[in-house]
Amino acid sequence: MSGLSPYRATLDATWIDYNGHLRDAYYGLVLSYATDDVMDQLGLDAAYRASTRCTLYTLEVHLHYLHEVKANDALTVESLVLDCDRKRILLGSVFRCTRLPEPVATGESMLLHVRQADKPATAAFPDDIAARLQALQLPAEARAAFGPGSRPIQLVRR
Amino acid sequence: MSGLSPYRATLDATWIDYNGHLRDAYYGLVLSYATDDVMDQLGLDAAYRASTRCTLYTLEVHLHYLHEVKANDALTVESLVLDCDRKRILLGSVFRCTRLPEPVATGESMLLHVRQADKPATAAFPDDIAARLQALQLPAEARAAFGPGSRPIQLVRR
Repeated sequence: MSGLSPYRATLDATWIDYNGHLRDAYYGLVLSYATDDVMDQLGLDAAYRASTRCTLYTLEVHLHYLHEVKANDALTVESLVLDCDRKRILLGSVFRCTRLPEPVATGESMLLHVRQADKPATAAFPDDIAARLQALQLPAEARAAFGPGSRPIQLVRR
Repeated sequence: MSGLSPYRATLDATWIDYNGHLRDAYYGLVLSYATDDVMDQLGLDAAYRASTRCTLYTLEVHLHYLHEVKANDALTVESLVLDCDRKRILLGSVFRCTRLPEPVATGESMLLHVRQADKPATAAFPDDIAARLQALQLPAEARAAFGPGSRPIQLVRR
């Protein structure tokens, strides 16, 4: 149990590519919207951003594509706080569709809390957000079970 | 010199998010279109796909976000064949905009050659495509210089 509500994606027909499945990049767009939804759930919402000028910047994203997603699939994203510190969140994402028992994709995103001014600068989370993140952070065993986890991408000869 | 022509992106105004910069996912969409362009350059184009029922599926993508991209930036993607074998391409991508001397993002994509039938199955590249990929493959030193390279994503405590 992550404590975060899953995000339910709305697939657009234009997101299906010449291969007849969801174009790779649109898994990323669904992930991005799911991350916005997590921000709302954490209290890093539009009102917070407007009053503090603080927001999250994405530093790095890894995506594993495990199964094709088709036009009529109902796609949801479960979000997990894999790790966090004063300024950063490592968010894990599990993409599921009702047609298949196993995940159709997984993602990991490194997110940085930034204050936007003339020049954006890193900023510590407010105490209440930091406490909420700590409470959401997965225990080590659950984190180890998250997978396929990120790794150096390489072509392994068989 | 990669031997592949860079891809010139056309940014849509709706791709700029509430942070006032290119939404993370749209780097991925630009990468996806740049990969289509590489497929055209390699001869894995629409005519090839129609006549062979073969195409590329994306298995994994890593993206490093290095600088914000703004609405008026001219964004290009340089594509590099970091590695390849009979069925797979590890494509490296360097995102540049004219406003900055250094890359604004880098990406790595693992692409698999697949024959689409009732059930998609991996397929070896035709000889001419395999030879073209071999010719394009970066030498080890150039590959080692590609960076920041992919890695296990993790929150390193400082």
